[in-house]
Amino acid sequence: MGLNILIILGHPDRFSFNHALARAVCAVLVENRHQVVFHDLYAEGFDPFLAPEEIPLDGRVPAPIRQHCDQLQSADGIVIVHPNWWGQPPAILKGWIDRVVRPGVAYRFEEGDCGEGVPVGLLKARTALVLNTSNTPERREFTEFGDPLETIWKRCIFGLCGVPHVRRRMFNVICTSSLEQRQEWLAEARKLAAELFPAQIQA
Amino acid sequence: MGLNILIILGHPDRFSFNHALARAVCAVLVENRHQVVFHDLYAEGFDPFLAPEEIPLDGRVPAPIRQHCDQLQSADGIVIVHPNWWGQPPAILKGWIDRVVRPGVAYRFEEGDCGEGVPVGLLKARTALVLNTSNTPERREFTEFGDPLETIWKRCIFGLCGVPHVRRRMFNVICTSSLEQRQEWLAEARKLAAELFPAQIQA
Repeated sequence: MGLNILIILGHPDRFSFNHALARAVCAVLVENRHQVVFHDLYAEGFDPFLAPEEIPLDGRVPAPIRQHCDQLQSADGIVIVHPNWWGQPPAILKGWIDRVVRPGVAYRFEEGDCGEGVPVGLLKARTALVLNTSNTPERREFTEFGDPLETIWKRCIFGLCGVPHVRRRMFNVICTSSLEQRQEWLAEARKLAAELFPAQIQA
Repeated sequence: MGLNILIILGHPDRFSFNHALARAVCAVLVENRHQVVFHDLYAEGFDPFLAPEEIPLDGRVPAPIRQHCDQLQSADGIVIVHPNWWGQPPAILKGWIDRVVRPGVAYRFEEGDCGEGVPVGLLKARTALVLNTSNTPERREFTEFGDPLETIWKRCIFGLCGVPHVRRRMFNVICTSSLEQRQEWLAEARKLAAELFPAQIQA
């Protein structure tokens, strides 16, 4: 048996390098006999609006979101692929975070805590891989913009939800890259995924 | 003549403290005879999906988004109101950023630059006010999560678009606050808005 790996892709263009990255990672994980669940949020028309009645711990969660939650809970590993848009994911992926990474699924608060306390992470996954693309040179991303995606994924999201190992790689600059460079990046993404989620030894 | 002030609110619950904040700021700005454009993105059902054909400088921008762009361009001041969800705005407001804060409207690249260079801010507004709410105590927001919203609004968005003065105030902890506390916060928000966007002297 392989691992349950959840891949979440948030990019509008199916010819994008983001799609190529997600497909490359998916392929190597399937080769290594993992069970992969792959969501291309744009292609699926994911609904990103968190409604007020959905917010509480016992809120009304629609069936499609409940299914996303079940997949997140049962994942042994998580792969996130998206471009750096304003130091954040695209809105559709932000909506997946808002709705799927919910209390009772990904974290909980101590009893009597309305949300002001220290949450307890609930995710089973020990490892996440975040692949980003950007047209901002790496040095400028740090000095000018402070690379908020690093903080968002490692501390605000996976840290809070109890996923201790988060590997993040931002590929840049995409818009001026050569075909050869992009092929190297795809190979690097495959290698990263295979290292983080190795083939399981047969019993 | 007053100033053109654009207020953007991103919260799903019309009984929320975010709505109270946005209404309070709107009221004081109208009292001071500014021209206010107010968007409650959830109430309006704002469509947050940036499509591939919309991305280029000369991309196909639908009429409702073009109107948002015109309002952003003509604003002398901008007010943003939203809760801190995972160190980011809710998805619907992220979609407003993705689609409305676009090239040719809010920033441009130098000729021959495909996006890898240093953008030039185009917004007329000199001042923005960002009001956030959170259930995370202030100290914990800094030490544990690094408060990415500070970086996102000041550096990644308004800094890039040429808005030099950004005042940000995060109100916390909302879920344990008393009515009296919230009334004080509303008064503080009104005062901030009146200071940043003072009534114009009659000619």
